[in-house]
Amino acid sequence: MKKASSLSELGFANDVHHALFRPIQEAAPPSPTKRHTKISVVGAGNVGMAIAQTILTQHLADELALVDAKPDMLRGEMLDLQHAAAFLPHTKILASTDYSVTAGSDICIITAGARQLPGETRLSLLQRNLALFKHIVPPVAKHSPGALLLVVSNPVDVLTYIAWKLSGFPPNRVIGSGTNLDSSRFKFLLAEHLEVNAQDVQAYMVGEHGDSSVALWSSISVGGVPILSQLTKDKAAMEQGVLERIRKAVVESAYEVIRLKGYTSWAIGYSVASLARSLLRDQHRIHPVSLLAKGFYGIPEDHEVFLSLPAQLGRSGVLSVANIQLSEEEAARLRRSADTLWELQRQLEI
Amino acid sequence: MKKASSLSELGFANDVHHALFRPIQEAAPPSPTKRHTKISVVGAGNVGMAIAQTILTQHLADELALVDAKPDMLRGEMLDLQHAAAFLPHTKILASTDYSVTAGSDICIITAGARQLPGETRLSLLQRNLALFKHIVPPVAKHSPGALLLVVSNPVDVLTYIAWKLSGFPPNRVIGSGTNLDSSRFKFLLAEHLEVNAQDVQAYMVGEHGDSSVALWSSISVGGVPILSQLTKDKAAMEQGVLERIRKAVVESAYEVIRLKGYTSWAIGYSVASLARSLLRDQHRIHPVSLLAKGFYGIPEDHEVFLSLPAQLGRSGVLSVANIQLSEEEAARLRRSADTLWELQRQLEI
Amino acid sequence: MKKASSLSELGFANDVHHALFRPIQEAAPPSPTKRHTKISVVGAGNVGMAIAQTILTQHLADELALVDAKPDMLRGEMLDLQHAAAFLPHTKILASTDYSVTAGSDICIITAGARQLPGETRLSLLQRNLALFKHIVPPVAKHSPGALLLVVSNPVDVLTYIAWKLSGFPPNRVIGSGTNLDSSRFKFLLAEHLEVNAQDVQAYMVGEHGDSSVALWSSISVGGVPILSQLTKDKAAMEQGVLERIRKAVVESAYEVIRLKGYTSWAIGYSVASLARSLLRDQHRIHPVSLLAKGFYGIPEDHEVFLSLPAQLGRSGVLSVANIQLSEEEAARLRRSADTLWELQRQLEI
Amino acid sequence: MKKASSLSELGFANDVHHALFRPIQEAAPPSPTKRHTKISVVGAGNVGMAIAQTILTQHLADELALVDAKPDMLRGEMLDLQHAAAFLPHTKILASTDYSVTAGSDICIITAGARQLPGETRLSLLQRNLALFKHIVPPVAKHSPGALLLVVSNPVDVLTYIAWKLSGFPPNRVIGSGTNLDSSRFKFLLAEHLEVNAQDVQAYMVGEHGDSSVALWSSISVGGVPILSQLTKDKAAMEQGVLERIRKAVVESAYEVIRLKGYTSWAIGYSVASLARSLLRDQHRIHPVSLLAKGFYGIPEDHEVFLSLPAQLGRSGVLSVANIQLSEEEAARLRRSADTLWELQRQLEI
Repeated sequence: MKKASSLSELGFANDVHHALFRPIQEAAPPSPTKRHTKISVVGAGNVGMAIAQTILTQHLADELALVDAKPDMLRGEMLDLQHAAAFLPHTKILASTDYSVTAGSDICIITAGARQLPGETRLSLLQRNLALFKHIVPPVAKHSPGALLLVVSNPVDVLTYIAWKLSGFPPNRVIGSGTNLDSSRFKFLLAEHLEVNAQDVQAYMVGEHGDSSVALWSSISVGGVPILSQLTKDKAAMEQGVLERIRKAVVESAYEVIRLKGYTSWAIGYSVASLARSLLRDQHRIHPVSLLAKGFYGIPEDHEVFLSLPAQLGRSGVLSVANIQLSEEEAARLRRSADTLWELQRQLEI
Repeated sequence: MKKASSLSELGFANDVHHALFRPIQEAAPPSPTKRHTKISVVGAGNVGMAIAQTILTQHLADELALVDAKPDMLRGEMLDLQHAAAFLPHTKILASTDYSVTAGSDICIITAGARQLPGETRLSLLQRNLALFKHIVPPVAKHSPGALLLVVSNPVDVLTYIAWKLSGFPPNRVIGSGTNLDSSRFKFLLAEHLEVNAQDVQAYMVGEHGDSSVALWSSISVGGVPILSQLTKDKAAMEQGVLERIRKAVVESAYEVIRLKGYTSWAIGYSVASLARSLLRDQHRIHPVSLLAKGFYGIPEDHEVFLSLPAQLGRSGVLSVANIQLSEEEAARLRRSADTLWELQRQLEI
Repeated sequence: MKKASSLSELGFANDVHHALFRPIQEAAPPSPTKRHTKISVVGAGNVGMAIAQTILTQHLADELALVDAKPDMLRGEMLDLQHAAAFLPHTKILASTDYSVTAGSDICIITAGARQLPGETRLSLLQRNLALFKHIVPPVAKHSPGALLLVVSNPVDVLTYIAWKLSGFPPNRVIGSGTNLDSSRFKFLLAEHLEVNAQDVQAYMVGEHGDSSVALWSSISVGGVPILSQLTKDKAAMEQGVLERIRKAVVESAYEVIRLKGYTSWAIGYSVASLARSLLRDQHRIHPVSLLAKGFYGIPEDHEVFLSLPAQLGRSGVLSVANIQLSEEEAARLRRSADTLWELQRQLEI
Repeated sequence: MKKASSLSELGFANDVHHALFRPIQEAAPPSPTKRHTKISVVGAGNVGMAIAQTILTQHLADELALVDAKPDMLRGEMLDLQHAAAFLPHTKILASTDYSVTAGSDICIITAGARQLPGETRLSLLQRNLALFKHIVPPVAKHSPGALLLVVSNPVDVLTYIAWKLSGFPPNRVIGSGTNLDSSRFKFLLAEHLEVNAQDVQAYMVGEHGDSSVALWSSISVGGVPILSQLTKDKAAMEQGVLERIRKAVVESAYEVIRLKGYTSWAIGYSVASLARSLLRDQHRIHPVSLLAKGFYGIPEDHEVFLSLPAQLGRSGVLSVANIQLSEEEAARLRRSADTLWELQRQLEI
């Protein structure tokens, strides 16, 4: 931080600190094993910065490092956060175009990614993102060999697979933000209509992030009251058609925000910060995130695909996957997504 | 919120809530006097949204209303915040182009403002902003006659004066964010160099926000240790020249961030959220904010100007102004700013 | 606070504040309608103080008033909390043996109560507590006619009924802490065994607080996964006998803590603070609390008993009661509790 | 925790967790170097439990271990905290009479200590506490060789010295809570009288904790306004006599709370939690704590005494000591305390 700041050229006498402070005698040097918590965010665009700012406000890290390819914008974002120092606890904020600034991270969050060009095929976009990840993931993994990788860039499921392959990390340490945010949007829409607090709504979307995501109707409960069984008794007030419209509203809502304001930022910021909290604080809480899904729900063992499933998260990443009960149709949709992704991935040269 | 959301068209049966919940008997209706805390933000640009998001993350309000002239962008920002509902407590988020959405606010934060055009004079910019504020302040004041007005738009000192005049509010209820952020940047630069926590640094910038702000050197202390007297003893390590360079670095830093990333957002977001907290929670804490400064430090009684001075803030706005000791030169700079602003204001037709 | 403090006799010159601070000109007096949040706690024993301290640490109120019949102990507790002022935001802490100190409270929490004497009948204990509540509830209701009453004293269900009758308040504004804590203990035992985070466990105990409480097995879910249906598939690993042992362990655990340390305090402190948060911040969250239960689940309309049911809580108290599905046996146990309590209450002269 | 809980005898099938959760494939075992934050509290009396509960509420640790010689009370306190699990994040709470439960702590807080018997001399009390610390400190140091030791037991300065000697730790890792709480009480009394927020008051008490503590008048400032210089101008409203009465009120206030309620707890809980936060989060904040003071302010190099001085605290303990300016009288009082403590310590056989 010292070097990055605009004070370095101010010519301040080096001994001002020493005029104000003195060490005690016989003091031992700081133990090198006593390190604080560090989070790195790769990509300082709207998504990366919303994540960074939410992490700062919630005091999740002692050190925050930003990496981006655009040095000016990056330095502007770093200074803007640093100027808030008097309102925040002592979080050190670093930024550089060089990945060495991420060294020793506990979590590396990757938000960088190419955007789809008009008329571009999905495969072509993926190949461009693969090329980008080949520049990002190896240096990130080299500088923080013990880190958790948290991929936010889209298409998140394939890119999490790519990050896993490029990092050489065990799969429990490579996680995609997946449908964690979709599930939040799902809860919001349900809570709003039911006039309850979204924090009392339990509901998951799983599978592939995006158009093919699967809403788990049987998982919906409000304050412990399972909605569907309740409603069946009350003359099935909420029929299949309405539910499907809600699922589509969730899928549509990301597109809607992008259409209206140009990008999404705040909600993904909170969503990723909540994942970082569960991981860093070893909370064993359950989140739907993109993880190595082969062998679950009939996905073939040779399909090395990442899909979102409700999982317990802790200090070592994915601790375990919840054994939810899918209807046959839901499981079939999962397997179709797995097939599609696997086909796509086989065309990539990683 | 109901009307603004995308669920309204989903055709959800109205009685789902009633299937899940029942009232108890003999229950009284909610008392109309028991209202929750509401903050409105006028202007949903980068500054307004950074303020809104920080207020949400810090749980400062039960209801947050956004107003902007651009309906699409505004709705996109509202939806993006609402989608974070599962990660946030039950804060109701509203947005509209109509000021009636702000009704009953405890604080109205105004961030809207015209930007300076190339070659435009200061007076011309002010006249355009005056025209804008004539559309903003009267409806805001009408819908929330008991609110505190917190002006963030620049040039903040004159616009706070204008908001005061247009609102008809008593001056203690009209506050400009002023040099609260400058003081934070000042503390950051001092803390970084002195290798201390910025929260242990006490230092103020006062007066006019911007190039003419006044750094109060005698107010600088670190953990209660006054720096200047300490340093004098240690052979005056920090001379006048160095200090002036720090002041200029503070003034420059806002320009630098704007040059690098195009605007400032995060730091002003934390800064304004800290003011909102002190005001709403009646904390009596001291912040340097823009307030009606006539009669202080020799500013003539007829100069109805707003300048930043350290003030105690509470539920009724400005509670009192700290009697800091200014050097004669510092006081003279304050008076010069007062004269300049007064001249400028006299050319405006409010 | 001024009068209650030990500084009043220090002879500090009255004008020190005025030497440090000055009002701005034309300032309006504070609006009388702009009041902050106030919580009162009646009874400053171990339970009352654990509640008070948790409320302070979680910043739930701007003003906290303590009432107890023992002036010395009360003043000691007040001073002990006040000495933490530098570590806490500006919460005003008051204490008095006179109920006027509670005036204008948003919530009044009653923790005072007589303890059972050796050999004393339940009716005799209740009659002594009724006599005590006749001294507590009317002055509390008089000084805060718009408050919510939150009864913690035991036996909580009958005493909540008594507080309702003595206050003359509508029933939605009189709430007993009921089985909110039992449900937390239930979640802890389940979470510990299942190796999950207790915050991901959804489970309720309802009905009468104490030996006759009802564990709602069908309500148990972990991260949205209903346990019982899951386990049935896995060869019914958790049979009725085990479940009943868990319920008994919950009921037993309060007795165990009392036997081991002499009283319970920390858990009830967090439990009541969580209720206060949902109420004050109008969160609409669902908690099992003791409320007027007549007409629910076949409880006769003339049985004016308070029993715990999952309810949405907000700024006006109980907003609605969740329509959970009880087995016939569970509903029968609720009705038996209702009968017992009603018989008991009819012997009281309120 | 498993073994300590009442669930162990419930006969719950071991495979319930496995019915609910499954590991992903190829998952690596958790890295042994990725450990969470652990705090141990030795002594589960009123002080130790207030500290433990404040640490829990403020989420300062992922694991909290309690040690006490009284197994029943200890288990009662542990269960009482565990029952709050649904209201708290996933903090693991352990308790045992065996020090092995503290293994791998980041901070060990020692609150155990013998109380003064009627008529007992200070030396005799110290000798009894020395005997006690010989049973506490060596096992604590053995099980957590890299920990910070934070001594709260009284007389805190001598017992911190004893803990240093018995632990063999470097002096920067052995800290006494010292006058951190006295300084908070000092700020409270000043803030109350000056009608400002205690968090805006900067003021230190240093030196020996207790009757001989030194109030640093020149360090008092309110929101950056030095009081004394301000008041001198206003005809010296606060004379020496009044200030001395405030200092005495601070010293007296601990005795007053003990006299009124039997012990102090809440304020010391917040005070020690604030130290733990600055240490664990490497905040570099300044607190007055008891540290090895030889060589400061003319204290002879051979006087290995611990006295409170304002110091920067971080992950390695005491980082540096602030160079405050003492008057000659203040420095003389420090040296007198150093002489007294040194004489006392020389009579101890450590």
